[in-house]
Amino acid sequence: MTLRLDQQIAFLNEADRLKSTLRATTLCDGSRPENSAEHSWHLCLYALVLADQAGPQVEIDRVIRMLILHDLVEIDAGDNPIYGDFDQTVVEQQEQLAAERLFGLLPDDLRDELRAIWEEFEAAETPSARFAKSLDRFQPPMQNLASGGGSWIDYKVTPQDIETRIAAKITRGAPGLWTYAKRRITAFFAQGAL
Amino acid sequence: MTLRLDQQIAFLNEADRLKSTLRATTLCDGSRPENSAEHSWHLCLYALVLADQAGPQVEIDRVIRMLILHDLVEIDAGDNPIYGDFDQTVVEQQEQLAAERLFGLLPDDLRDELRAIWEEFEAAETPSARFAKSLDRFQPPMQNLASGGGSWIDYKVTPQDIETRIAAKITRGAPGLWTYAKRRITAFFAQGAL
Ligand SMILES: [Ca+2]
Repeated sequence: MTLRLDQQIAFLNEADRLKSTLRATTLCDGSRPENSAEHSWHLCLYALVLADQAGPQVEIDRVIRMLILHDLVEIDAGDNPIYGDFDQTVVEQQEQLAAERLFGLLPDDLRDELRAIWEEFEAAETPSARFAKSLDRFQPPMQNLASGGGSWIDYKVTPQDIETRIAAKITRGAPGLWTYAKRRITAFFAQGAL
Repeated sequence: MTLRLDQQIAFLNEADRLKSTLRATTLCDGSRPENSAEHSWHLCLYALVLADQAGPQVEIDRVIRMLILHDLVEIDAGDNPIYGDFDQTVVEQQEQLAAERLFGLLPDDLRDELRAIWEEFEAAETPSARFAKSLDRFQPPMQNLASGGGSWIDYKVTPQDIETRIAAKITRGAPGLWTYAKRRITAFFAQGAL
């Protein structure tokens, strides 16, 4: 029992490092970059508050479990900003290695259970995973709108760049959220806010 | 529909401020104070990983919903460190006002749904709420053990002070976690680590 708890706590202590993984997006007040741990919490809250945007086959509690775990691999692999340029094959290899190491700190039964939840998110095939992915793409533009541009300024993006990167992914799991985001993004750029 | 989404996003943007609410506990590496948003994420992960410490009547998904919401009121009321001295009646009044204002940003149905989850946590009467409260008391000593003392140093506490403040609350929802914490805390102070 004690050995099991020691493994569980070792994993939870290692997971603490996600609080030091920085993202391209800032807080709504623009004061500093958001880290991936607080971002993950925020997405869980998005899931609770925006559950009415999910299709009938989506299980919100499963979505939340995915969102708790979805960025853990960034402890080893780092965050890949939406507007950055990355070799997707390399990123996926790094993330698989990270998953191997991190979930491998757990007792075998928990390792398998939590890794399966993360793999479901990554595969983005089930309705719950698609909705979780949609929220993960929907939150950064909401942060950028609130902070007056955020990572859109850093990456010098146009409304068309934004649409190319996020429209299909948000629409796949939560079409109403893309309709809403598009309207607000269009209005924001039309004001000449950037 | 749009008005509803505007209200939902206004709430989610206001909730972003929890990322700027600082706690007495530091990250495991001692580098900086933990904020209440990333702390809430960490507790959700604790619930997933330590579910085997919960009694049979505990619903882990409900525990997680409580943990996502449990500290939101700190946006207005601030965090009250475990070893600080507070007038509990004043704190509860401040937190009720905060709940009124924050959940009040939401459409009525969501306001009632989420506030009920938070009230269940606060009341600490259901098995799920008790387990959630136990995790909230169990995580800070794990952080302090990892960082070499943390808030125990700042507040100059003894092992007896720690036991007085957290033993009953952890034991009520997760007796195995207090047994584990006590053994590790005793060993830590016996080493003369502080
Ligand atoms: Ca608290």
